[in-house]
Amino acid sequence: MNDLNAQVRRYVDIWNQPDGAQRAALIDAAFIATASYVDPLVRADGAEALNATIGVVQQQFPGHRFEPYGTPDAHGRHLRFSWALKDAGGTVAARGTDIAVLADDGRFSSVTGFLDYVASAAR
Amino acid sequence: MNDLNAQVRRYVDIWNQPDGAQRAALIDAAFIATASYVDPLVRADGAEALNATIGVVQQQFPGHRFEPYGTPDAHGRHLRFSWALKDAGGTVAARGTDIAVLADDGRFSSVTGFLDYVASAAR
Repeated sequence: MNDLNAQVRRYVDIWNQPDGAQRAALIDAAFIATASYVDPLVRADGAEALNATIGVVQQQFPGHRFEPYGTPDAHGRHLRFSWALKDAGGTVAARGTDIAVLADDGRFSSVTGFLDYVASAAR
Repeated sequence: MNDLNAQVRRYVDIWNQPDGAQRAALIDAAFIATASYVDPLVRADGAEALNATIGVVQQQFPGHRFEPYGTPDAHGRHLRFSWALKDAGGTVAARGTDIAVLADDGRFSSVTGFLDYVASAAR
């Protein structure tokens, strides 16, 4: 469970990292090169595309940060965890749940995101 | 949204179908032959294995039925929906959320299940 929380923490830290080069290094450590990411708004195929996608999302929500939300769970190579996107004052702009599949080496192979809540101001 | 609810209904009906041959026909209509199913308790690779797995689960919960629960959502080929497993008196034995990926032809390609609630008597 600590491992699982740590993995979610690493994932969220990637989404919060503003520096593209540092983010690329974190992504390489946590995702395989061919990893895919898809949610209702964006799709990224490969670690490089994911890095660019996260940069775009950060620009759309300046001053916001992602935080783990709720209790993650996992079985086998399948992870489920939720997150909240908050502005600097702590107001939640969105919450979502991501389903991840791990590769043989434990890095993320694919992530599928779903939105659980979107504040009307963020729509 | 009606399509999505209908798809979840078909899925739940498969889990409730007690006749193995009829269930196989329903599975063939709703899943590709190589479809995979995995949750914290069971794993099935292929439509035949899924049929057998559902039969085993039904034996573990005699007199129970699955029902759709909450509001399903989807984007692209990715579906998320929840279900409740109830006994004949309506008492919830378990609730879960399944994440499905659809194949080109719209049938289920893979389903990954997570448990949201398990009644202590069902553990």
